[in-house]
Amino acid sequence: MADQNELMELAKRRGFFFGSNGAYGGTAGFYTFGPEGASLKHNVEAAWRDQFTIRLGNDEIEAPTIMPEAVFEASGHLDGFDDMLVECAECGASHRADHLIEEALEEIEDAEALGIERVGELIEEHDLACPACGASLAGEPVEDFNLMFETSIGPGSGDPGYMRPETAQGIFVEFPRLKEYARGQLPFGVTQIGPAYRNEISPRRGIIRVREFTQAELEQFIDPEEDEPPLEEVEDVEVTLYPVTEQDADDGEYLETTIGEAVETAVIGSPWVAYYLGIAQQWYERVGVDMDRFRFRQHLSGERAHYADDCWDAESEIGGNWIEIAGFAYRGCYDLTKHAEYSGDRFTVFKRYDEPVTVETATVDPDMSALGPKFGGAAAEVAEALQERAKTDPEAFESDEVTLEIDGESYTVETEVANFAVEEQTESGEHITPHVVEPSFGVGRTVYTLLEHGYTEDELDDETRTYLSLAPEVAPTNVAVFPLVSNDDELLEVATDIAGSLRSAGISVSYDDSGSIGRRYRRQDEVGTPFCVTVDHEGLEGDAEPTVTLRERDSARQIRLPVAAVSEQLETLLAGERTFEELSEQYGDVETDLTTA
Amino acid sequence: MADQNELMELAKRRGFFFGSNGAYGGTAGFYTFGPEGASLKHNVEAAWRDQFTIRLGNDEIEAPTIMPEAVFEASGHLDGFDDMLVECAECGASHRADHLIEEALEEIEDAEALGIERVGELIEEHDLACPACGASLAGEPVEDFNLMFETSIGPGSGDPGYMRPETAQGIFVEFPRLKEYARGQLPFGVTQIGPAYRNEISPRRGIIRVREFTQAELEQFIDPEEDEPPLEEVEDVEVTLYPVTEQDADDGEYLETTIGEAVETAVIGSPWVAYYLGIAQQWYERVGVDMDRFRFRQHLSGERAHYADDCWDAESEIGGNWIEIAGFAYRGCYDLTKHAEYSGDRFTVFKRYDEPVTVETATVDPDMSALGPKFGGAAAEVAEALQERAKTDPEAFESDEVTLEIDGESYTVETEVANFAVEEQTESGEHITPHVVEPSFGVGRTVYTLLEHGYTEDELDDETRTYLSLAPEVAPTNVAVFPLVSNDDELLEVATDIAGSLRSAGISVSYDDSGSIGRRYRRQDEVGTPFCVTVDHEGLEGDAEPTVTLRERDSARQIRLPVAAVSEQLETLLAGERTFEELSEQYGDVETDLTTA
Repeated sequence: MADQNELMELAKRRGFFFGSNGAYGGTAGFYTFGPEGASLKHNVEAAWRDQFTIRLGNDEIEAPTIMPEAVFEASGHLDGFDDMLVECAECGASHRADHLIEEALEEIEDAEALGIERVGELIEEHDLACPACGASLAGEPVEDFNLMFETSIGPGSGDPGYMRPETAQGIFVEFPRLKEYARGQLPFGVTQIGPAYRNEISPRRGIIRVREFTQAELEQFIDPEEDEPPLEEVEDVEVTLYPVTEQDADDGEYLETTIGEAVETAVIGSPWVAYYLGIAQQWYERVGVDMDRFRFRQHLSGERAHYADDCWDAESEIGGNWIEIAGFAYRGCYDLTKHAEYSGDRFTVFKRYDEPVTVETATVDPDMSALGPKFGGAAAEVAEALQERAKTDPEAFESDEVTLEIDGESYTVETEVANFAVEEQTESGEHITPHVVEPSFGVGRTVYTLLEHGYTEDELDDETRTYLSLAPEVAPTNVAVFPLVSNDDELLEVATDIAGSLRSAGISVSYDDSGSIGRRYRRQDEVGTPFCVTVDHEGLEGDAEPTVTLRERDSARQIRLPVAAVSEQLETLLAGERTFEELSEQYGDVETDLTTA
Repeated sequence: MADQNELMELAKRRGFFFGSNGAYGGTAGFYTFGPEGASLKHNVEAAWRDQFTIRLGNDEIEAPTIMPEAVFEASGHLDGFDDMLVECAECGASHRADHLIEEALEEIEDAEALGIERVGELIEEHDLACPACGASLAGEPVEDFNLMFETSIGPGSGDPGYMRPETAQGIFVEFPRLKEYARGQLPFGVTQIGPAYRNEISPRRGIIRVREFTQAELEQFIDPEEDEPPLEEVEDVEVTLYPVTEQDADDGEYLETTIGEAVETAVIGSPWVAYYLGIAQQWYERVGVDMDRFRFRQHLSGERAHYADDCWDAESEIGGNWIEIAGFAYRGCYDLTKHAEYSGDRFTVFKRYDEPVTVETATVDPDMSALGPKFGGAAAEVAEALQERAKTDPEAFESDEVTLEIDGESYTVETEVANFAVEEQTESGEHITPHVVEPSFGVGRTVYTLLEHGYTEDELDDETRTYLSLAPEVAPTNVAVFPLVSNDDELLEVATDIAGSLRSAGISVSYDDSGSIGRRYRRQDEVGTPFCVTVDHEGLEGDAEPTVTLRERDSARQIRLPVAAVSEQLETLLAGERTFEELSEQYGDVETDLTTA
């Protein structure tokens, strides 16, 4: 396991990521991805796009990051996207009130669930102090703080706008148009990768809890009555589950099972959620998460949004803690219904029946010239009550008289006067509101997990070596190419040629001719470059076929192979079609001595 | 040339882009890229990354979109990033005051340059009316409106933050760290692709003037005294230039020349700017801009930021107007100097001299016990003046006395008392502030240009056909695969197999089996898919080698080729290694009749 400080130091020194605006003292909660980190992040996003957009046949969109207030009135973020804030009167520092409770009182695990009032009382009862200055926080007001970044759209006072707290809303709000691109056919899925924002009260834990981050979200729209996921594709995928029952039990344990088994035994309630857990499990493995430090944890009932039927998080272990790196929620029809309600637009699809259906509708058309004289001022109410009765109890109109109760009074109407009728209508289908299943991934947290899980130290030539064991698909650089020394034109020429031909084959290459060869290897080890090719004198001596060495990062083993074979062999290695072990058997290992190289 | 309304309608209907939040009445200045548009935009970004990051050997970073106020105090955006705002007292509509003048008074082309006061006077003098309601705007105050979206970072009143108005600042502000990743060696370049924001007073012209957009920027850091661009790589590139002299001339014409010629004749002042114009010319051609509707226009002196030595825009012709799609500026040391000044951090690189240099520094160490009694209260000032004199005029200390002038009074000091000395110091180099050359691209405007330039109507089978002639590299989909009919299992199987093998070869594929084949072709034509493969009965008849048809978008011509050759031939077509013409010669054209197909 990586020491967190060493990992952060490596991340900064080698250009993975660092706190933004350092020249101006830094801005808490904002990180910049340096060259290596931006490349790693880009590759993770490309791998996500490949799996969740292309392979699953979904559509990707790109919506703005600023959205108008109406969207968040509907989504509930304006009212409910809050954290509990307490400010120190002495030093002015802001704190998450629920976190203070959880840190001070071991028996309380989820202080947010206690409510704002009780949290205020607990601070007072235990006389909790400000972690910044030590002053007492007793009696300080605990308030809801909305976590959206607010801004103003347009000149003057403008219209209120917010930085989106999730990319999902950019998809939901355009559903009326997106369903047209899907030609009105369920199921269909829409993805988006992009920035999301959360104005954290006290950002912390480095890149884990930040104010601006990248989400990769998929909104799967389904007909809840008919659409089933292709569960057979993932039924044998093995997963580590941590269901509610085990979290609640004193001796709770992980459940090692398969997706198929978990659905059959109803450990996972929704087959759609189960399907995406299976897809995600394979994807995380593909990009290089250590699956021994990975689990799916079910949300406790208190954690779950009220509209979510079943909810699981993908969690990775980081420095001894588990952090959420993705969420999988069955959101039902909540989002689309809310936007339909607030916008007045149609957030439905038309579902055609197998056969047209004949629907009977009971109506009345009361003769007001009869009701008026009889009921006076109550005539209109009586007419309305007749309409209602026709809908709910059409049989009542088979009698000669219908008796209505209005505000405790009885009114009796002759059926003839009501002009009761039953109309038949043929309907070819109905407008239904799709349900939504949402796999939502944190890209930055995935990147951090890959660094943490890939961070390794070993002993090499009596020295401690640090390397990042990143999967070739996501490593910032695929291959580094070195001439052994920089003052030999022949070596430089061969090395430049190899770099060029690798690049033409679509392989990302780093060329480096400065410093000792040992130092260059270490530099590539630290940024996770899986393979290094070195052009040395030995390989170009005599009349034999020219050769170079190929070094594998994790084992630091080297083989010697013909220059002509480098490009093809690296392509097969990077595609996972051959292993370095196989190449080593074919070409034989080379003895190396890094310290003298 | 595309009719703008038809193009916007196509963009919306086929999922390229549309105004955001339509269900809530829309939000002016915000657009959402639908599935086809997001894919096209993504491909344009990938092509930009390939050219400006990878091929040029630069580093890409990803910085946050929210930045703290201090950054924009330094960059000048807080004070100077304004437009002129006038609000109608009658209806409350906001307008760009300078635009009102330009629209009303033909003789004025750049009202912004007149200044806010004069613009107010002109509105009054000509009694200009509100375009929204017709009320008079005379006497309404004209004000500077800052175009940055403001927000607040952190709880409570928080710290002011802004959505970045350009991605560049995220690079400049991290220069002290980025130079370390470049190991302190100039020249080096850093790129970034991402959202930028501009709170336009009145967004208009569809996707051209929007409030949130994507920039792709390269900041090239150079040593102005030593670093030269590799101009030989682009000296023969032909460009259409529109220099200031021609813009000012009555019969001004475009200058058709080469990059090399333009540098030699000093039409383009900075070789670095010229180099990037050459690179950009080739890149625009590669992604499919119509180079007959493209030019580089030099900034007039009024347009240029005060720090920019020479500035050129890449412009494309859209609906009869020229729009800026990229800017190329020599920014000098302005940005880094400003950030150094405001942050106190070091925005320099250490430049080693070829040979260490010995520097003589003259100093004095005045004997205050002598100066005090002699000059009384003025002694400290005299000592200071001695220090200054030693620096500017060390020879003066060769005499016995030095006479100083302070505030009109003369003071004579004996040289002995001054303790004058010359110290020698060996310096191995100096800290220099790099200059910045900035190619800055608007991604959305490039996408819009590609749609506009690619939009074509022709007559096919007596019907008007619309197609988008997009370059294969950026087209949302590379190849569409169709079974001729959907009720034949054999056709479906072969079509699915072909789609699968194309996808394995990294080709993006759209599979469609619904509707008439003619309609499916038109659908792909409208989204710019360069090639369609159709599996028909004819190709699978008898014992002959199975064949399919391959249709080229622009010509609507078809050839018939063996199933076994499809993947390989499409790869060569998409890579530009063969033309459809060559394939047609090899395989022969097929007679088709779309209307009956």
